[in-house]
Amino acid sequence: MGRVTRLHPVLRIGPGQVVRRSDTLAVEEPLEIRLDGQPFVVTMRTPGDDVDLVHGLLHSEGVIASAADLVGARYCDGVGPDGLNTYNVLDVALAPTAVPPSAENRRQVVTTSACGVCGTTSIDQVVRQTCHPLGEGLRLPAALVSAAPDRLREQQHAFDKTGGLHAAGLMTADGVIVCSREDVGRHNAVDKVVGWALRQGRVPLSDLVLVVSGRASFELTQKAVLAGLPMMVAVSAPSSLAAELATEAGLTLVGFVRGERMNIYSHPERVLIPAPVG
Amino acid sequence: MGRVTRLHPVLRIGPGQVVRRSDTLAVEEPLEIRLDGQPFVVTMRTPGDDVDLVHGLLHSEGVIASAADLVGARYCDGVGPDGLNTYNVLDVALAPTAVPPSAENRRQVVTTSACGVCGTTSIDQVVRQTCHPLGEGLRLPAALVSAAPDRLREQQHAFDKTGGLHAAGLMTADGVIVCSREDVGRHNAVDKVVGWALRQGRVPLSDLVLVVSGRASFELTQKAVLAGLPMMVAVSAPSSLAAELATEAGLTLVGFVRGERMNIYSHPERVLIPAPVG
Repeated sequence: MGRVTRLHPVLRIGPGQVVRRSDTLAVEEPLEIRLDGQPFVVTMRTPGDDVDLVHGLLHSEGVIASAADLVGARYCDGVGPDGLNTYNVLDVALAPTAVPPSAENRRQVVTTSACGVCGTTSIDQVVRQTCHPLGEGLRLPAALVSAAPDRLREQQHAFDKTGGLHAAGLMTADGVIVCSREDVGRHNAVDKVVGWALRQGRVPLSDLVLVVSGRASFELTQKAVLAGLPMMVAVSAPSSLAAELATEAGLTLVGFVRGERMNIYSHPERVLIPAPVG
Repeated sequence: MGRVTRLHPVLRIGPGQVVRRSDTLAVEEPLEIRLDGQPFVVTMRTPGDDVDLVHGLLHSEGVIASAADLVGARYCDGVGPDGLNTYNVLDVALAPTAVPPSAENRRQVVTTSACGVCGTTSIDQVVRQTCHPLGEGLRLPAALVSAAPDRLREQQHAFDKTGGLHAAGLMTADGVIVCSREDVGRHNAVDKVVGWALRQGRVPLSDLVLVVSGRASFELTQKAVLAGLPMMVAVSAPSSLAAELATEAGLTLVGFVRGERMNIYSHPERVLIPAPVG
């Protein structure tokens, strides 16, 4: 199950050059954990060492105290839309000594009785909820995309003091950050700027760009798409599922924005690139 | 409510010097969101712009489509253990046009009917579950703490390819990484190494150090404490609540480990520091 990395086509932009190539992304896939057949939780994770993951998660949730409290774990043998086992549903058998979560602590998860939870399912759920198409008209010069992380950083007053906060900002096609928020949780920072826009009556945000200080996970990309944002610019790497969702939903996803370099993972048509010299 | 940063005492170690001072940390506090009086979700966040946060979160959960679907939000007027309003419980009134979560999608949250959710409550919950004291005997030369991030990095094969993965490792007092795991989710990476140890019968992990590639959140610190780890080393900043939990629970929390520099936020007695020269 060497599913830790996956190739994704990327448009790599550097000083005076534009190259089409494949980029290696960290794989993100949902894992549904069931306890004695009952849905317990879905976590987005990188496949591999799932049995260790389940042991650690159930230990910190207080369900198991030692490995003896867990007598078995097997992948549900159903298949995804491609007819292959997804290896994304793990059914755990608890020993009588385990402390199963009470009905109150059991997180209710949206789940099918089938065994098919996979990236495609997650993407379909988001795409179904989205009003399409996403801001077809938005265009941004590559130079403004390059400048976005610095412009967001200028607003990060608490980061300068702590080094410990994530930031999210909404930027116009002219490169003006109209709202920025900081938070220990990157999802919270995005929720705060989208919530601000919602209260302003500006959602769907078809004329703005979401800028985030770190990586682009599936969760952040999902929030961007659901808010109707046509472009998301991340300082660091996207996950495989973030890039796949962006491709599917029509979002322009830009990552690794550093100096004049950037990688465009989907829908590059919104980024205006100067013709290479010579 | 300028509660975005908080001071925490720190032992700052650099080449040939040890300084006691206060460090500014990003505040992390729980926010309990209620919908028409019913508990909906608790999220760890940096206080501030909570009303925006709730709008954004409810929008991406599909509960509200526009600001008009939310007719009011007010902080519950109860108090925390210090007799002050925690401003950590926000009750939201939905309009009839909103789509309240179904019983299935409503995440069951552990909550009191009181209004007192706060950092202290969260810390108490972890400390009550912990077997104390945490590995009293563990001692580590500062030089090995400094080396920990590089030793973890040497194990990060997928990061080299993707730049997009978090890592967690378990290190002995001799500086040997005995288990390391990578994941798009930092909590998953920690769950995977703790789960590995649990399956080896090594929990509580009283003789090992948890090394993490990024920041130290409350969640990661909680996992370290619950696994009985006496020390956690993070490459970046801790949150306020992570430092407070570490102090309370007896965990040695080290952050900003870069070259020969590091900050020790709690229980420095486990780090052996060479006497300053001269």
